Amino acid sequence: MEEILKEKIKLLKEGKLSEEEFYKIIEHFPYKDIGDIKLDFHRKFRRGLPEVIYGSGKTTEQLRKIINKFEELSENVLITRINQEKAEELTGEFKSLKYYPKGNILTFDRDIKSSLEGKILVLTAGASDENVAEEAFLSAKYFGNIVEKEYDVGVACINRILDLREKLNDYSVLIVVAGMEGALPSVVAGLTSTPVIAVPTSVGYGANLGGIAALLSMLNSCAGGMSVVNIDNGFGAAFQATLINRKICGKG
Amino acid sequence: MEEILKEKIKLLKEGKLSEEEFYKIIEHFPYKDIGDIKLDFHRKFRRGLPEVIYGSGKTTEQLRKIINKFEELSENVLITRINQEKAEELTGEFKSLKYYPKGNILTFDRDIKSSLEGKILVLTAGASDENVAEEAFLSAKYFGNIVEKEYDVGVACINRILDLREKLNDYSVLIVVAGMEGALPSVVAGLTSTPVIAVPTSVGYGANLGGIAALLSMLNSCAGGMSVVNIDNGFGAAFQATLINRKICGKG
Amino acid sequence: MEEILKEKIKLLKEGKLSEEEFYKIIEHFPYKDIGDIKLDFHRKFRRGLPEVIYGSGKTTEQLRKIINKFEELSENVLITRINQEKAEELTGEFKSLKYYPKGNILTFDRDIKSSLEGKILVLTAGASDENVAEEAFLSAKYFGNIVEKEYDVGVACINRILDLREKLNDYSVLIVVAGMEGALPSVVAGLTSTPVIAVPTSVGYGANLGGIAALLSMLNSCAGGMSVVNIDNGFGAAFQATLINRKICGKG
Amino acid sequence: MEEILKEKIKLLKEGKLSEEEFYKIIEHFPYKDIGDIKLDFHRKFRRGLPEVIYGSGKTTEQLRKIINKFEELSENVLITRINQEKAEELTGEFKSLKYYPKGNILTFDRDIKSSLEGKILVLTAGASDENVAEEAFLSAKYFGNIVEKEYDVGVACINRILDLREKLNDYSVLIVVAGMEGALPSVVAGLTSTPVIAVPTSVGYGANLGGIAALLSMLNSCAGGMSVVNIDNGFGAAFQATLINRKICGKG
Amino acid sequence: MEEILKEKIKLLKEGKLSEEEFYKIIEHFPYKDIGDIKLDFHRKFRRGLPEVIYGSGKTTEQLRKIINKFEELSENVLITRINQEKAEELTGEFKSLKYYPKGNILTFDRDIKSSLEGKILVLTAGASDENVAEEAFLSAKYFGNIVEKEYDVGVACINRILDLREKLNDYSVLIVVAGMEGALPSVVAGLTSTPVIAVPTSVGYGANLGGIAALLSMLNSCAGGMSVVNIDNGFGAAFQATLINRKICGKG
Amino acid sequence: MEEILKEKIKLLKEGKLSEEEFYKIIEHFPYKDIGDIKLDFHRKFRRGLPEVIYGSGKTTEQLRKIINKFEELSENVLITRINQEKAEELTGEFKSLKYYPKGNILTFDRDIKSSLEGKILVLTAGASDENVAEEAFLSAKYFGNIVEKEYDVGVACINRILDLREKLNDYSVLIVVAGMEGALPSVVAGLTSTPVIAVPTSVGYGANLGGIAALLSMLNSCAGGMSVVNIDNGFGAAFQATLINRKICGKG
Amino acid sequence: MEEILKEKIKLLKEGKLSEEEFYKIIEHFPYKDIGDIKLDFHRKFRRGLPEVIYGSGKTTEQLRKIINKFEELSENVLITRINQEKAEELTGEFKSLKYYPKGNILTFDRDIKSSLEGKILVLTAGASDENVAEEAFLSAKYFGNIVEKEYDVGVACINRILDLREKLNDYSVLIVVAGMEGALPSVVAGLTSTPVIAVPTSVGYGANLGGIAALLSMLNSCAGGMSVVNIDNGFGAAFQATLINRKICGKG
Amino acid sequence: MEEILKEKIKLLKEGKLSEEEFYKIIEHFPYKDIGDIKLDFHRKFRRGLPEVIYGSGKTTEQLRKIINKFEELSENVLITRINQEKAEELTGEFKSLKYYPKGNILTFDRDIKSSLEGKILVLTAGASDENVAEEAFLSAKYFGNIVEKEYDVGVACINRILDLREKLNDYSVLIVVAGMEGALPSVVAGLTSTPVIAVPTSVGYGANLGGIAALLSMLNSCAGGMSVVNIDNGFGAAFQATLINRKICGKG
Repeated sequence: MEEILKEKIKLLKEGKLSEEEFYKIIEHFPYKDIGDIKLDFHRKFRRGLPEVIYGSGKTTEQLRKIINKFEELSENVLITRINQEKAEELTGEFKSLKYYPKGNILTFDRDIKSSLEGKILVLTAGASDENVAEEAFLSAKYFGNIVEKEYDVGVACINRILDLREKLNDYSVLIVVAGMEGALPSVVAGLTSTPVIAVPTSVGYGANLGGIAALLSMLNSCAGGMSVVNIDNGFGAAFQATLINRKICGKG
Repeated sequence: MEEILKEKIKLLKEGKLSEEEFYKIIEHFPYKDIGDIKLDFHRKFRRGLPEVIYGSGKTTEQLRKIINKFEELSENVLITRINQEKAEELTGEFKSLKYYPKGNILTFDRDIKSSLEGKILVLTAGASDENVAEEAFLSAKYFGNIVEKEYDVGVACINRILDLREKLNDYSVLIVVAGMEGALPSVVAGLTSTPVIAVPTSVGYGANLGGIAALLSMLNSCAGGMSVVNIDNGFGAAFQATLINRKICGKG
Repeated sequence: MEEILKEKIKLLKEGKLSEEEFYKIIEHFPYKDIGDIKLDFHRKFRRGLPEVIYGSGKTTEQLRKIINKFEELSENVLITRINQEKAEELTGEFKSLKYYPKGNILTFDRDIKSSLEGKILVLTAGASDENVAEEAFLSAKYFGNIVEKEYDVGVACINRILDLREKLNDYSVLIVVAGMEGALPSVVAGLTSTPVIAVPTSVGYGANLGGIAALLSMLNSCAGGMSVVNIDNGFGAAFQATLINRKICGKG
Repeated sequence: MEEILKEKIKLLKEGKLSEEEFYKIIEHFPYKDIGDIKLDFHRKFRRGLPEVIYGSGKTTEQLRKIINKFEELSENVLITRINQEKAEELTGEFKSLKYYPKGNILTFDRDIKSSLEGKILVLTAGASDENVAEEAFLSAKYFGNIVEKEYDVGVACINRILDLREKLNDYSVLIVVAGMEGALPSVVAGLTSTPVIAVPTSVGYGANLGGIAALLSMLNSCAGGMSVVNIDNGFGAAFQATLINRKICGKG
Repeated sequence: MEEILKEKIKLLKEGKLSEEEFYKIIEHFPYKDIGDIKLDFHRKFRRGLPEVIYGSGKTTEQLRKIINKFEELSENVLITRINQEKAEELTGEFKSLKYYPKGNILTFDRDIKSSLEGKILVLTAGASDENVAEEAFLSAKYFGNIVEKEYDVGVACINRILDLREKLNDYSVLIVVAGMEGALPSVVAGLTSTPVIAVPTSVGYGANLGGIAALLSMLNSCAGGMSVVNIDNGFGAAFQATLINRKICGKG
Repeated sequence: MEEILKEKIKLLKEGKLSEEEFYKIIEHFPYKDIGDIKLDFHRKFRRGLPEVIYGSGKTTEQLRKIINKFEELSENVLITRINQEKAEELTGEFKSLKYYPKGNILTFDRDIKSSLEGKILVLTAGASDENVAEEAFLSAKYFGNIVEKEYDVGVACINRILDLREKLNDYSVLIVVAGMEGALPSVVAGLTSTPVIAVPTSVGYGANLGGIAALLSMLNSCAGGMSVVNIDNGFGAAFQATLINRKICGKG
Repeated sequence: MEEILKEKIKLLKEGKLSEEEFYKIIEHFPYKDIGDIKLDFHRKFRRGLPEVIYGSGKTTEQLRKIINKFEELSENVLITRINQEKAEELTGEFKSLKYYPKGNILTFDRDIKSSLEGKILVLTAGASDENVAEEAFLSAKYFGNIVEKEYDVGVACINRILDLREKLNDYSVLIVVAGMEGALPSVVAGLTSTPVIAVPTSVGYGANLGGIAALLSMLNSCAGGMSVVNIDNGFGAAFQATLINRKICGKG
Repeated sequence: MEEILKEKIKLLKEGKLSEEEFYKIIEHFPYKDIGDIKLDFHRKFRRGLPEVIYGSGKTTEQLRKIINKFEELSENVLITRINQEKAEELTGEFKSLKYYPKGNILTFDRDIKSSLEGKILVLTAGASDENVAEEAFLSAKYFGNIVEKEYDVGVACINRILDLREKLNDYSVLIVVAGMEGALPSVVAGLTSTPVIAVPTSVGYGANLGGIAALLSMLNSCAGGMSVVNIDNGFGAAFQATLINRKICGKG
């Protein structure tokens, strides 16, 4: 962090950076206060990943303010958990935004080049887990990873996952998404030496308790080599997988 | 109660009661009242299985009374959930009793011939689930089934269960015992056309919640062909498996 | 399984099966990947029951894709937990589909002949449990069982179930559906030697906790001869009952 | 209340009550402070029932202080939830005390005449529920009721309760004690026009959750004519039953 | 069923059946089967209270069928937990029905004379508990009780309940309705010798857990003389209060 | 009630009652009964704070009645938890009312002068917690406090709260509002000698359990100097903070 | 760390550092690392209260190390949640220590002068809540407050608390300790303008859920002017009460 | 199994099997069956980590059998969750074993050289979390990692963790262990680009719910870059950290 900063100061002194440019860089050190919202632009330096906006509890008005600020700074933005209705209102206003209904994600419509060589694989137990998996898939891509997917390979038909056995070790991280009894991550972890990030989903009913059953199942796995994020938290899995992949690629 | 029965038998002998009428009477003939405890000897007629005593909440004194009554009637007895201490006190008094510390079961020490051809298989996920599995194993034997076992075949090392794949269809019922994440029954059910009785165990810690995690996992299984009994209820699984096996063997 | 396959190969060699026909059979060994969804057509061979689709979390688009594939293969399909709205959209497109609003089930509109002699009886405690019971009833019929029903026979008026006492032993399996306090399965199990599959429903309010009260009640039954499926899981009960009935009928 | 007091004042004025006697009566109006403990002697006037001591959380020292005060006032005392060890220490000191190990109750060893004509019946589902039932039985007797009992009449063998059917209407209140699935109160309530006080017990294991399963079962009963007290609260059931019986007997 | 009854009546008329014998027959004579719904008309004889319909899980079609049957038999009907929409559809069809939006109750619009002298008082802690209280109030009136009410007397302003202190003993039963912390029933019970039926409501938010907080509070009351029904179960409280009041009035 | 008060006032005026005696009378003088609702106007004397109306469970009709009464008495009113729809209906009728959509609060549109010198600071962890924070902010202002705010200073970017470190000791009370993992209050409490009132919010999803996660986190804080109110209970925090601030300002 | 401090002191003495500058340095000067334990001696400056040791999870060895360090620094120490056995071992070694079995607290045996004029009152609902109350009482005294107590004044006999009504406003803070239904704090808060810190206790059984019932009750209080600490957390209540009292006394 | 392997080796040597073919065979070569326990020796090949034994539910007899087998194979062994008593019995028999009471771990007493360059840091919030942290520390060392520790750096005194800020990025993985409110992992994750494995502990009481509070806190963290294992599962964290570190070191 300090290197970057020192370099910028050097560039400033050498006249290679205008005062205005320099100001733009440091003015958000550590965060930008835009009135009741404080954007953590500095996270890019501190944690290697850009700021991400949790869309769920925010009003369209708050989001508009945030998007404006990002646009002004020519920064890309990732807004998660944003429903169709709000998304459409915003894509109507900001033509440069793109909405992914599977995954409930909104970003600027830009090509993102993978900056990391290590690959991440996203797996789901059932077809109904797709939404959460897409949140993970899109977020991981946004963070610069190469991401692949294998959906609907749950344990009720064990051959589906056994057929993937050979290649599981080729990835930096496996993100395994499952609802209902949440058994898939345990089986996957038992087959490989790649770390598994398990994502329980709220898919199911009754004693599923909104995903608690799958969550508990994953926390109690006896397979080892697996850790867990919140129910439906595809984004969180992607974040953690990215930090691991960055370390593996020598960038963490 | 006995007077009534004797009178009916007399009437039957004298031809004043048809056989059919007599059968109807004894079919719903109830229980033996031994003072604050009512033994359901009639269950043998009504449900095909002898009375079983839940030992856990009972005092040694209550159990002594019950065992005496069974001995007097030359009936075998199955007492479940009885700890070492109480068991030793009773085996000290009743020399004909035998205690099985794995399984926490007390019966008269008699040979039980299997009266049913169909076989039951008891599987466990881990070596720590043995106690519950033995409760199921011993109870099912007591009820006249042929019972086999395959322990410690959990999903963390999937080959262990895949190796049994071929023979799973040869049984009338599979009793699958698992603690922690409780994933084994789902995987087993997905491999076979034999009905699975899943038994969650309280083996585990933390978010296992005394077996609730395994229980929820099993209830939410997407495999199908599986139903669940209470946590640690090896006996209940054996009871249900016996009723099924009896039907299969044409005796239900 | 191998017998079937060997027979098919023999038929192929003898020219009684075209290469194309043969290909169609094996191409789904073990499952059919139709892009993010993997259909387990092989289950028919492995488990004796055809693939079933859990409709709840799926989009109309996903379901359309699945139905097309089944239609193409001339296979019947059972889609559970599908609401009126989605069902109407699909029955609008696929004229051969039929929707059962009680039971929330969608299948092709075909006569299903019962292929099993053993009978299954579906009972409910209250009239409000009908939806779940119909899911069980329709699924069990779809799987080839003879199915009968006795609804609204809960314990608040005990004569209703006592009146059925005589005939309970005549069935292979009893599916007992109950919400609120969920006491009916315990009482039924106590009256018969037929295995009971208990289905808790979410009917009730307050301390019912969305069916948890009934579920716990059933898991803690002291009657024996009873096992439990997830809350509102009529389909799961039918699946398990079918496996048992198939074994009883010598087809498991 | 006022009548009693006015009468006492009249008696005092008329010389039929000594000043000392009068003082003893009013000095505990409303409660007696004996240092960090405040005894509600006044409850007898206000609620018709004498003060009762919850023994569980109290030290032997606190109980000694309380018993002394009651003895000094020639009042009987009911101490509930007192274990064998503490009880023995106290009965060693106070020879006039008597301990009931079933029921875990300590009182002065006196004959209690039933002051109420209406009868209360205590029923249990299983023999293991006896301890809680005895707490109810002994407390109800202490409060002056005629109390009868019928233990071990649970629904697993329904004839046991059906045999009591005829007489259930003869009581003022039925106290129905049950653990595990807690179905008995529902069945009993459905058979009678006598109000049922349901007492869930912690008898059971696993998904019983220390009595929560039985409690929820009772709260969700669809039978009507039933209300519930805390798990294992035999005393509370007796208290409520007494108030009802007193009203029925015209003394409430 | 009707044939049997007609025959018995004929026998009675012909003197071949004594009145006593006849009474025994009809006393346990059960229910009316109207196709998947079994109406317990007999409850009036068995339990002293007419059949009541739980409206919540039933379709308009099911309710129509039920109302027709009651109308045909000139019996009044009480349908609880029926929402505005369904109620309006039915009152549109059946002009003789009346809907009470507070209380969500539907009955035939008839004068109900109180057949019992004893009085019941319904109290609420807050104005928001009114709906549940009205369910209790209207049901208790329907069952023939004299019912009074005192609403919004919660403990946050203790004077409101202390002002009622004097008259609390004048009732047969107190129904005390409270949400949030549910403290009112404890305070009321401590003030009186009248039995309290406590009704927790789901009024509140957050850690209220849909009424669980109030329910637990009531179950753990240290006041004594109080028993509890399900959350929001105003009807259940009225049912229990009626059975008690009937006993008090010598009609139970 | 009013007669009594008038008479007392007359006596006061005539000098037959000392001011002190008069104060004692009105100090415990209770509430206003407006038919099923009892307004605690007296709270202003007893507790130092005016009556507040919990809007959530009340109908528009009930609220209209209440507002009328307050208007008639020229008292300001604070109605909390009132949604947009109801609020608009009421502001349509009562032109003097003002609705605050953030905070869901309705009051008469009047200037409120802060009557207390001590200041309260409201902090939030995230921008999504704003609604609850505004409920606290507006209520605290209504009660006469000087209130400031610092929103979106959660621990994910710790500098945001560390930057406020210096000034935290300048307030009488800190109200710290946080959802999700609810860690902010612990960190804040560890930095200051000002008491913290922690407000968990229901912001989050999955294992957040509607705010339970944040609530438990706050209750288990090892920081000390912190106490907790119900989930989303911004009003409750303001009430408690006001009592503390009043004491600090010598007005409690 | 110490070198730095010594140097700063030297600079201060030499006048090269202003007193203000020096204060700023030590104000954020942190903790003492004694090997795997880091003592927060600085808290005295930062938060106004000395370091306190949570004894529960610590070994005697760890505690010995800590006590030695405090003794060496001539600082008093407060160790909470330390059981009799550990305490006796330590008081055996450190003659200057004193153990309070009620309250489970260990300190050096020194006179503590109250340094604050404002008073704190500790109340309990029942005599069984004494242990928790004593933890609060002793901790609050240790922190320099004047502390009084009123135990066993629960709502079952409302007069006990009404009798204290007059004096409740005389305190800075009320700490109200209650188990079972936890209703006392609500009633107390409704009577006074003094802030209430509510402490739920685990006193109770069954549906008490180890104090959860009382906790929920307190969190849902509709009285206002009350905030809550963890179950049995007498110390936490004392800490919060002290911060408030210090502010009131102008020392916060 | 061994026969098969020997034969394959023979074929390999004879050149009838290519090296590649041979590798494929042993790669999926499974486990060692020692009678009711099946040791997964093959895991070393499949997952890069040796077999580990969960000691908690196993009898001394089972453990003896396992240790014998490992000794025979000259393999080291890691037995977790083994209490003092069992450990002493075993170290008495097997002189080559060493027990670590902090961490409850038993291994052969051998030097383990770190085979991985990347470092893991174990942090705890409090001194009471040491046991769980040591389980992680010792396990991670056993698996060949370089492991360091920083204990007792919880958020109540934030400087303790801020002082470590600079070096957090130097590790491959951070294992952050915390009980009570479990806030430390969130704060740590917010400060670094190193992935955090969060371990909730059961340290705490009351609303801690045996560690559930800390677990929920961690699952709901808004910091990102963090995933969670079961309560007290230090071993599981070490396992996952090892897999990550191996990937980083190019050995996964």
